[in-house]
Amino acid sequence: MKLYGFWRSLASLRVRIALNLKGLKFEETPIDLLKGQQFADTYKALNPQSVVPALILDDGGPPLFQSLAILEYLDETHPQPPLLPKDARGRARVRALALISAADGHPLVVPRIRNFLEKELHVDEAGRNRWLQHWTLKALEAYESHLAGERETGRFCHGDAPTIADICLAGQVFGGKFFNCDLSGVPTVNRIFAECMKIEAFDRAQPLKQPGAPSQVSH
Amino acid sequence: MKLYGFWRSLASLRVRIALNLKGLKFEETPIDLLKGQQFADTYKALNPQSVVPALILDDGGPPLFQSLAILEYLDETHPQPPLLPKDARGRARVRALALISAADGHPLVVPRIRNFLEKELHVDEAGRNRWLQHWTLKALEAYESHLAGERETGRFCHGDAPTIADICLAGQVFGGKFFNCDLSGVPTVNRIFAECMKIEAFDRAQPLKQPGAPSQVSH
Repeated sequence: MKLYGFWRSLASLRVRIALNLKGLKFEETPIDLLKGQQFADTYKALNPQSVVPALILDDGGPPLFQSLAILEYLDETHPQPPLLPKDARGRARVRALALISAADGHPLVVPRIRNFLEKELHVDEAGRNRWLQHWTLKALEAYESHLAGERETGRFCHGDAPTIADICLAGQVFGGKFFNCDLSGVPTVNRIFAECMKIEAFDRAQPLKQPGAPSQVSH
Repeated sequence: MKLYGFWRSLASLRVRIALNLKGLKFEETPIDLLKGQQFADTYKALNPQSVVPALILDDGGPPLFQSLAILEYLDETHPQPPLLPKDARGRARVRALALISAADGHPLVVPRIRNFLEKELHVDEAGRNRWLQHWTLKALEAYESHLAGERETGRFCHGDAPTIADICLAGQVFGGKFFNCDLSGVPTVNRIFAECMKIEAFDRAQPLKQPGAPSQVSH
C-alpha cells in the first residue's frame, strides 16, 4: 500500500496509526501542505479535493480518500485487531466520538482554513491563534464531557482496547499541542492519550517522528 | 424515537431523511440554534456538545449523537433499504463522499462558526458571506470532481439507489441554496440532488417543510 500524507496532517496520522495497529506495511509519500504540493496536477489526479491522505491499495483500484472512510475500510478488510466494538450501540458511540474531532474539530484548523482567514479575511496572527486554540479546545472539551462520566469509558475511549475514537482523540490532542492549548481542563482525555502513546503503533505514527518533520512544531 | 433537531440544521436533515427512508416513526423536538437553545442545561444533559441532532431510542439508553454515526446505527439496526453498498470498496467510496460534506464542508458554516467570525474576529457581513459561499461551494466542487467522472456514479452518487452519500450531498446543496451559491458549475451534483428530491423521504425532510421554518431562508 502507498499512503500520500504529510508529517503534521492529523488526518494522515489517523491512517498511519490504523495501518500500524493492523500490522499492514505501507510506504508514505509526503505531500507538503505548507508548500502547496496538494495543488499539483499530479496529486489532484489522485485526490481531486487536494487534501491528504490518499491511500493506494495494491489491487490497482482508485485511491481511497477521507481518513474515517479509510479506517472503516481497513477494519472491514483486516478485522484483527478490531477498531470498532461488536454491538451497534457501542459502534455508534465510538463513531460519534471519532467525529467530534474528524468533523467538528480538526477541519477548522487545517492549512486551507488558516490561509483563508489570513489572506481573504485579513485576520491577524493573534486572531488566527485564538481561532485555532478555541476550536481545538472545544473539541477536546466535548471529548472530556463524554468520557469523564460515561460508563463505557475504560482504559481507552470505549473499553480497554483502542478504537477509531482513540485514533481521532490522539490526533486532536496533537493539535492541542501544536497550537499551545491549555490542556489542564481535560484530564480524562490526557489520561487516554497517554495510554495510546504507550502503544508502539501510535508512537511510531506521531507527527514529529515522520520524515521531513522538524524537531519542534511552530505554527 | 425522539429526534432533537432544528429546521435549518443540515445534520438534523440527514437523520430525518434516513429515518424516513427506513420507514421509522419519530417525533421531532426543535432546538432553536439561532436563539441559543442548544446551550440550555436541559439540552446539554442530552448532548453535552450543545449541537444537534440527538436521537433518543425507545430502549431507554443514552442519546445517540453525531449525524453520520446515527446514520450508520440506523443502517445496522434497520438494514432495509440499505444506505451503504455491500462491497468494502463501495462502502469506502460512499463514506468518503459523505464526509466531503459532513467533515470538510458543513462544519465550517454552522451557527457557532458564524458567531465566532462576527463576535470574536469582527469579520463584517460581506466577509462572513464570502466565507460561507466559498466553503460551501468548495465541498460541492469536490463532489462534482468525483461524481462527474467516476464509473460508480449512477442515478445517485453510487449506483441507482440513495446512500448516505446522497443524504449528505442533499444537505450540502441545501447549504448552497441558503447561502446563495452559484451552483452552475456542479451539474452532476444538481442532477443527483434533483433525483433525491423526487423521493418522498427526502422531500418531507427538507428544511422549509419543518415546523418553525420560515417561508424563505435569509442568512
